[in-house]
Amino acid sequence: MLSQVVELIENKDNFAITTHIKPDGDGIGSSLGLCWLLRSLGKNAEVVMNGGIPQAYSGLPGVDQIQNVSSVNGKYDAVFVIECSDLARPGIEGLEDQFTVNIDHHATCEHFGTINWIDSTASAVGEMIYNLCKAIGGRITPEIAECVYLALVADTGSFRYSNTSDRTLKVASELVKAGAKPAKVGEAVYNSYPWSRIELMRQVLDTVKRDGTGRIAILRQTLAMGEEAGSVDGDNNGFVNIPLAAKDIVAVIYMREIGKDQFRASLRSRGNINVAKVAEQFGGGGHKNAAGLSINGPWDEAEATLITAVSAAIDAAAS
Amino acid sequence: MLSQVVELIENKDNFAITTHIKPDGDGIGSSLGLCWLLRSLGKNAEVVMNGGIPQAYSGLPGVDQIQNVSSVNGKYDAVFVIECSDLARPGIEGLEDQFTVNIDHHATCEHFGTINWIDSTASAVGEMIYNLCKAIGGRITPEIAECVYLALVADTGSFRYSNTSDRTLKVASELVKAGAKPAKVGEAVYNSYPWSRIELMRQVLDTVKRDGTGRIAILRQTLAMGEEAGSVDGDNNGFVNIPLAAKDIVAVIYMREIGKDQFRASLRSRGNINVAKVAEQFGGGGHKNAAGLSINGPWDEAEATLITAVSAAIDAAAS
Repeated sequence: MLSQVVELIENKDNFAITTHIKPDGDGIGSSLGLCWLLRSLGKNAEVVMNGGIPQAYSGLPGVDQIQNVSSVNGKYDAVFVIECSDLARPGIEGLEDQFTVNIDHHATCEHFGTINWIDSTASAVGEMIYNLCKAIGGRITPEIAECVYLALVADTGSFRYSNTSDRTLKVASELVKAGAKPAKVGEAVYNSYPWSRIELMRQVLDTVKRDGTGRIAILRQTLAMGEEAGSVDGDNNGFVNIPLAAKDIVAVIYMREIGKDQFRASLRSRGNINVAKVAEQFGGGGHKNAAGLSINGPWDEAEATLITAVSAAIDAAAS
Repeated sequence: MLSQVVELIENKDNFAITTHIKPDGDGIGSSLGLCWLLRSLGKNAEVVMNGGIPQAYSGLPGVDQIQNVSSVNGKYDAVFVIECSDLARPGIEGLEDQFTVNIDHHATCEHFGTINWIDSTASAVGEMIYNLCKAIGGRITPEIAECVYLALVADTGSFRYSNTSDRTLKVASELVKAGAKPAKVGEAVYNSYPWSRIELMRQVLDTVKRDGTGRIAILRQTLAMGEEAGSVDGDNNGFVNIPLAAKDIVAVIYMREIGKDQFRASLRSRGNINVAKVAEQFGGGGHKNAAGLSINGPWDEAEATLITAVSAAIDAAAS
């Protein structure tokens, strides 16, 4: 609960903050935002993470001070664990021996923390960090504002997804008033890729096709494409959503080759079409409109299998 | 001025509203938003326009009541002219004989109206319509909220452009509270294209290349591509921005073939690179970071000419 978090911060001094590996914008923005908040209150705080930080977040204030670690010892009064479904997600050993504060906005989150503050009405953990700042009587510094604004932008698709509430936009307004620059954050999140993203997009989009009914779009990313483009992790962010620009497309299957006859598939859908259930049939999972799974087999066969499964989900939603 | 607009509305009863031909989201959203505001105040109001409405706006409340006209006579107490640089932009005859109210957020707008209300600090005319509603003591109905929210989204690139202020986001928050649905508006603006958009994107992106310095990206759209894709007006919206996702690209040249050796070129740039000045060299114009022009000649020669001109603008910005 929020009141427990406030009390902890008021009574202790040494904190670490961590989030899941391969952090998204909400994970990294909220972690840094909380770090700046704690420091502004006169506390010792540092962000600890295992692994690299995507280029999109390299301009955030404090990102150069993040500690790259694979374990933590007992030197902290508490470790804040941001946007993690369980305690293994940060990929850091020793967390189970720490006093941990679990902060998340996913209702499905395990209550693994010593304190658990879960608010599934928040669009992003960033919104919760803003609320924490207000609850503790802190000032939104320009550093907090920039980090938390990025968290909001990342998790709401720049205020386009259905999780965008009037409160989200009110918080965003306050963050801009406190110094966040929407254009700067937008450039960082959407326009800081290497050229290989464009080259990869060209090749992937060249494979686009529709199923026989014209309702499902299919995209393929071969191993060779990634190599030819010299692409890096994350270059294909959002490619799966491109065909949804066409109003008649209600689902997308994005198949990425990861080895001989081995594929990762990302699924997207509109409205009531539940692709999480499709993914579960293949041992994967996700949300209703965005899910993922692994599948083997000759490419054409695996694709046909997925088209059949997604078609069934479309028909189920229509009935 | 706003006070004159309020006084006019309070004292008169019969209004028309119009905007420029080929309306963008701000033009159509603000026009319909104002129409709903006037009606909620018990006034007679209708939107009159010359020409079609893009598919993206077909779901807006009131769009089916828009009058398609090529001229207006004297039956209105006043005609509101939304987001037009001059009185020719609506493409409607007879406006010069009307009492007109010019509402715009572009500082360069001609003061062609009987009343001129220009607010260049507003991100969109939509923000001004919200302010008008507040100034006149009106209630933000769900219809007003949805139309004005779309206007804001369209003119700020979903709150990503530098015109997004804390006031913009505050207004957006109030509109959502009043009934606007961010996800619905986002779907309408970004995801309501025909399939031909995807096919055209595939073909255009297949032409992507960089200049020798790796700073300029070039895209080509041939007449044949549009025909093969069966594409419609607006299908290529935003294609010119795709290469800006790569951080090393500081300018984009998008050349669209419109006839034998005839081209329309769209230019985009980052930061201080002024492509409006480049466009002016060829009789075109626009804003610092987004401009357009017409150019003739064999394709390769015209392209080389533009690369030289844009390169000079890049060098000028760096010096």
